[in-house]
Amino acid sequence: MAKKKLRVGLIGYGFMGRTHANAYKSVGNFFESGHEPELTAVCARDGTRAKAFAEQWGVKSVETDWRKIVARDDIDLIDIASPNDTHEEIAIAAANAGKMVACEKPLGRNAAESRAMVAAVEKAGVANMVWYNYRRVPAVTLAKQLIDEGRLGRIFHYRAKFLQDWTIASDLPQGGEGLWRLDKQVAGSGVTGDLLAHCIDTAMWLNGAIDSVSGMTETFIKERVHNVKGGVQKVTIDDASAFLARFANGSLATFEATRYARGHKALYTLEINGEHASIFWDLHDLHRLEFFDHKDEGRTRGWRSVHITDGDHPYMDRWWVPGLQIGYEHTFIHQVADFLKGLDEGKPAAPTFRDALATDLVTDAVLKSAETGRWERVA
Amino acid sequence: MAKKKLRVGLIGYGFMGRTHANAYKSVGNFFESGHEPELTAVCARDGTRAKAFAEQWGVKSVETDWRKIVARDDIDLIDIASPNDTHEEIAIAAANAGKMVACEKPLGRNAAESRAMVAAVEKAGVANMVWYNYRRVPAVTLAKQLIDEGRLGRIFHYRAKFLQDWTIASDLPQGGEGLWRLDKQVAGSGVTGDLLAHCIDTAMWLNGAIDSVSGMTETFIKERVHNVKGGVQKVTIDDASAFLARFANGSLATFEATRYARGHKALYTLEINGEHASIFWDLHDLHRLEFFDHKDEGRTRGWRSVHITDGDHPYMDRWWVPGLQIGYEHTFIHQVADFLKGLDEGKPAAPTFRDALATDLVTDAVLKSAETGRWERVA
Amino acid sequence: MAKKKLRVGLIGYGFMGRTHANAYKSVGNFFESGHEPELTAVCARDGTRAKAFAEQWGVKSVETDWRKIVARDDIDLIDIASPNDTHEEIAIAAANAGKMVACEKPLGRNAAESRAMVAAVEKAGVANMVWYNYRRVPAVTLAKQLIDEGRLGRIFHYRAKFLQDWTIASDLPQGGEGLWRLDKQVAGSGVTGDLLAHCIDTAMWLNGAIDSVSGMTETFIKERVHNVKGGVQKVTIDDASAFLARFANGSLATFEATRYARGHKALYTLEINGEHASIFWDLHDLHRLEFFDHKDEGRTRGWRSVHITDGDHPYMDRWWVPGLQIGYEHTFIHQVADFLKGLDEGKPAAPTFRDALATDLVTDAVLKSAETGRWERVA
Amino acid sequence: MAKKKLRVGLIGYGFMGRTHANAYKSVGNFFESGHEPELTAVCARDGTRAKAFAEQWGVKSVETDWRKIVARDDIDLIDIASPNDTHEEIAIAAANAGKMVACEKPLGRNAAESRAMVAAVEKAGVANMVWYNYRRVPAVTLAKQLIDEGRLGRIFHYRAKFLQDWTIASDLPQGGEGLWRLDKQVAGSGVTGDLLAHCIDTAMWLNGAIDSVSGMTETFIKERVHNVKGGVQKVTIDDASAFLARFANGSLATFEATRYARGHKALYTLEINGEHASIFWDLHDLHRLEFFDHKDEGRTRGWRSVHITDGDHPYMDRWWVPGLQIGYEHTFIHQVADFLKGLDEGKPAAPTFRDALATDLVTDAVLKSAETGRWERVA
Repeated sequence: MAKKKLRVGLIGYGFMGRTHANAYKSVGNFFESGHEPELTAVCARDGTRAKAFAEQWGVKSVETDWRKIVARDDIDLIDIASPNDTHEEIAIAAANAGKMVACEKPLGRNAAESRAMVAAVEKAGVANMVWYNYRRVPAVTLAKQLIDEGRLGRIFHYRAKFLQDWTIASDLPQGGEGLWRLDKQVAGSGVTGDLLAHCIDTAMWLNGAIDSVSGMTETFIKERVHNVKGGVQKVTIDDASAFLARFANGSLATFEATRYARGHKALYTLEINGEHASIFWDLHDLHRLEFFDHKDEGRTRGWRSVHITDGDHPYMDRWWVPGLQIGYEHTFIHQVADFLKGLDEGKPAAPTFRDALATDLVTDAVLKSAETGRWERVA
Repeated sequence: MAKKKLRVGLIGYGFMGRTHANAYKSVGNFFESGHEPELTAVCARDGTRAKAFAEQWGVKSVETDWRKIVARDDIDLIDIASPNDTHEEIAIAAANAGKMVACEKPLGRNAAESRAMVAAVEKAGVANMVWYNYRRVPAVTLAKQLIDEGRLGRIFHYRAKFLQDWTIASDLPQGGEGLWRLDKQVAGSGVTGDLLAHCIDTAMWLNGAIDSVSGMTETFIKERVHNVKGGVQKVTIDDASAFLARFANGSLATFEATRYARGHKALYTLEINGEHASIFWDLHDLHRLEFFDHKDEGRTRGWRSVHITDGDHPYMDRWWVPGLQIGYEHTFIHQVADFLKGLDEGKPAAPTFRDALATDLVTDAVLKSAETGRWERVA
Repeated sequence: MAKKKLRVGLIGYGFMGRTHANAYKSVGNFFESGHEPELTAVCARDGTRAKAFAEQWGVKSVETDWRKIVARDDIDLIDIASPNDTHEEIAIAAANAGKMVACEKPLGRNAAESRAMVAAVEKAGVANMVWYNYRRVPAVTLAKQLIDEGRLGRIFHYRAKFLQDWTIASDLPQGGEGLWRLDKQVAGSGVTGDLLAHCIDTAMWLNGAIDSVSGMTETFIKERVHNVKGGVQKVTIDDASAFLARFANGSLATFEATRYARGHKALYTLEINGEHASIFWDLHDLHRLEFFDHKDEGRTRGWRSVHITDGDHPYMDRWWVPGLQIGYEHTFIHQVADFLKGLDEGKPAAPTFRDALATDLVTDAVLKSAETGRWERVA
Repeated sequence: MAKKKLRVGLIGYGFMGRTHANAYKSVGNFFESGHEPELTAVCARDGTRAKAFAEQWGVKSVETDWRKIVARDDIDLIDIASPNDTHEEIAIAAANAGKMVACEKPLGRNAAESRAMVAAVEKAGVANMVWYNYRRVPAVTLAKQLIDEGRLGRIFHYRAKFLQDWTIASDLPQGGEGLWRLDKQVAGSGVTGDLLAHCIDTAMWLNGAIDSVSGMTETFIKERVHNVKGGVQKVTIDDASAFLARFANGSLATFEATRYARGHKALYTLEINGEHASIFWDLHDLHRLEFFDHKDEGRTRGWRSVHITDGDHPYMDRWWVPGLQIGYEHTFIHQVADFLKGLDEGKPAAPTFRDALATDLVTDAVLKSAETGRWERVA
């Protein structure tokens, strides 16, 4: 069967640029589709770096101005992997140019930006997707299946946390290459938009809408050298953020994210307790799902450590043989596979821009609550 | 050396009555002291049960009215292991009678009751202690030592939860034998006073005072048959309770307790993240302490699973040999050992009634915040 | 109901003397029986120590010659907790005197000694028991139940190991107080009789007879100071011992024990793989049983970590509440409870001397095979 | 820098064909080298399947006779991923044709075949490599570093096992597509050559030569339908194989492999106990290394669970960011990366054919010992 090319223009060449490039390159080796991605162009302000990236990943051409890539006729999809403060402008321009748009998370720096982006892609009627990649961890996808099948029954509790420790050193600067996540102007917020956004996207996918929140944020290191602006500057992002929540289905939740949890690099954990069963998952061992089923015989009832490597686990029939695990980057490959399948079938893959906006409404409410000291309803 | 008898009058014969009795009986086999406890009397309203208990535990006499036990000349220590609504009255009477008083936690049903109890024992000048037994888990005591030695450095985060699942069934009644914890009139509150109180006591012992809290509570099953009052009655306790907190030392915390977390029986976990090191502990495997030390060499740095069974671990030189674990009831034995040591040395063992009052001030603030929807300062 | 006294004469006051004394003292608080143990006498060559032990444990009298204790009319049961080289003589004398006999494991220093002991107790017709206490870990007892119910189906594999690290230091002496386990004359053998004997007893209880073995032993530290004989002496015990085995039921096994496994204090693990299910257990976390059931649904199939603290787990209805674990010493309490129940019902509790002899036949075959370099049949 | 093409002719398109193809395709995205692999040709007897494979993996051409691929001028490296009974003939022909040769493990079906293969590549002087990929798990490579640095001190014990459960069903046929591993004629042996070979290669890499072994094998299911020969046929492979071993350095070992360990898919574990430190690793969680260092302070000493995702871990600076794990297929990418580096530097990467022969000498000795019932020296 002749495949249709999906010509990708990738904006950004950092950590996320690499995970996306790898996904486009590898997906066809493992997943069938009528669409075949091609790395047509990569764009970065620094031409030398863009060129090096293109060489390493076999990208056909290079641009240093994102406007050019948006304007090119030989590009079908604009993939935005550049810092958060560029998302809105690029996405809207791409949509207006009739391109499909994929965007790294969070969608905008706040819900207002995200709303404008949703409006643009919906008006243009272009396929759109946000890289909340953790939905495509096979263990997490399996959790979704089990919940949707009613295996957990009524849900009582949800808890999630995303713990890191990379900003504890007080001599770590803010701003610039790799450190823009410490600069509120660029990032929009600190861990709330960076880490909690992941937790919230998964949570609402698994457990439905969040009604209201009570939040708390803190900036532990008050001042840092600013690489771009120069000199010691006040730190304006949130280093840590936690909130209580009530879901629409009546369940209660606790959420927490920080970059000051010594000993944890990317410990994203989630747990959901239902009437009949409970589920726990942990990014540090992402190929396992812990599952407790109260229907098991009493004497031998216990948390099952399910090693998600069998052919009957989501996505896993495409990979190796039972017992052999996949890793982090595979979640991006799965997301591209589902996006291509969506194109094949004319049904867009989630999460769309609209889905991602819902997350931004929650993060906005959390940040507002942290200021007001009161519960806030999610708009 | 001739030992001084410590003649104990135990009020209550339930789960806690058994753990206390066992502690008094066993302590002398493992710990040296100039004081030797004796189970002199046990008191319960049901004389048959009291008698059966006395027989099984070798208690010398039986009473069915607590006032009588308080009045007896041959009793040195009144130990209150009866339901929460009896604590205040008994403790004050015992103190007024010049007896030492040990009381199950929580001290009172609320801070007002607890304040009166503190006043009574302090006025009487009698030794007093509250059974927050988890301080005496060797792993938790070791955590305290490490923190006090500064091994963690500045503290950023504290998180604790206490998860159970025994009240999920909607046909479980409230009230009466073994179920008084579901009756607010008797218990004072639900999981806040029952489970969170444990978490708070340990947290303040390890990490200092809590300044302010934002709480949330829920009663999932709204009505239950009431064993005592009869008929279906509204459930007035909190089934679940969670709160955000700020400690006086600037660290942030999340706390949660519930009886609706399917798969967990008594999962009390705590974690504390410091600048240099972190600690995690879990009641379900109470003989292990997880410890992460950032000062370890980078390549081999990892969470250490410390098997707390060696002679250089707190209390463990009194037990068996390395590799062989102790269990739950030992925490009560340790508490009695420390209480006796306090008597030997004339220095009272913690937590005293005053220490326990501090916990009640936090639980009161949590319950208040859950009503007001605002952050509340701990009085 | 009036209870019948079981007057115990305990020989030995070391580590095992303490575990036994504790078991006799505590059993009545938790288990019902028509028999009630009493610590009537303790015997040790060192009178001062015997006296101190008696004081700490409430033993009524003291002897320094075991022959006297055996001769006393007011003793029903002789419990041998002294070094291995004393087992045979004491046990036979006790049996000849018509006493019940309980003996620490291994029964004799070799099968020849054990055979004589079996002959003596069987001729005398006295109740007898060997302290293979690990059968009474609730998790291990549950494993036995599951196997006996056929839950595992045909058994393919058994593997056990018992790893310690306490003799790695080359300046550790051999012989004398607490170190007689390094002296072959006293101990009979090294880890084979000390640690593998435990593994073999459990294995045959769970999986039936062992037909043949191929063994290997090693003495890593060839010479040590001898505390009793004086001077540096050749070490004659086995520091490490491993063997392959074939069970009568056709399953294969590997066994290993050592005191040179850095990082392990008393890591006794066992695993059994059947057609339908598998079981794993580990002494370091003795209150957990890992259970894999192939009959579980494929997607959520995994090893279940069963927290053995519920009332439907063996022995656990006698202890605390779900979620709260017991420890090492409880296995001895359970063994006494079963021994008393055996007396109540006139059915002796296992393992008897005859059961323990079967283990010695295997350890003898292992040691022989290690010398011949060939497979040896178990006699 | 202009890169030199490494034109690969891949023979075999099954599970291993896929892992190799993926490695050649991905290596350049993550590792720098002066050599750049190209999938020039794939060969399989079934032309349709070869074509499908070529399409999915972007292989430039297809052959159905391996002799043609060996004869082609545009191929630099013959990579043998076909069943074991083809290894010898192809490898020798490729070497004779002056091609580099990479071969799946085990090298030959027995040491005699392997010896002939070693002779051929060494005579031809061509680069050669065997796919013992587990050496390139970052955790295992780190173990090698720590051992070579003397961190463990004198080694006392090595233990490895490789447990699977995929052949328990008695109606699973032997022979043919994907099942040739059950046919001794094709495979050479059962789990000994398939699974133990992996364990032995790693063991000798980490701990040096093995001197002597005592083995045991079993075929649990005696007859199976044969897909190729037809009808029910005797099963001649070993379903399970275990052996005791003595290393040249004086340490003792136990090894075991089976396809009848219910609950384990590919549980390859290894542990090494040294005087100062111990290491444990497990393929099911391959991104973790468990490390115990006796030099740690006593109170906080414990097994460290090292999450092998940091830049200072072997190979990990090429992948993502700390906390994010890689999976199984990456070991093949690492092996290609090291092979290319070897070409760059003119130093062949291990394991070479000669290294792999050493493993076959051990497996031959194990199989011989299983027949003779005696210890056998490794030739």
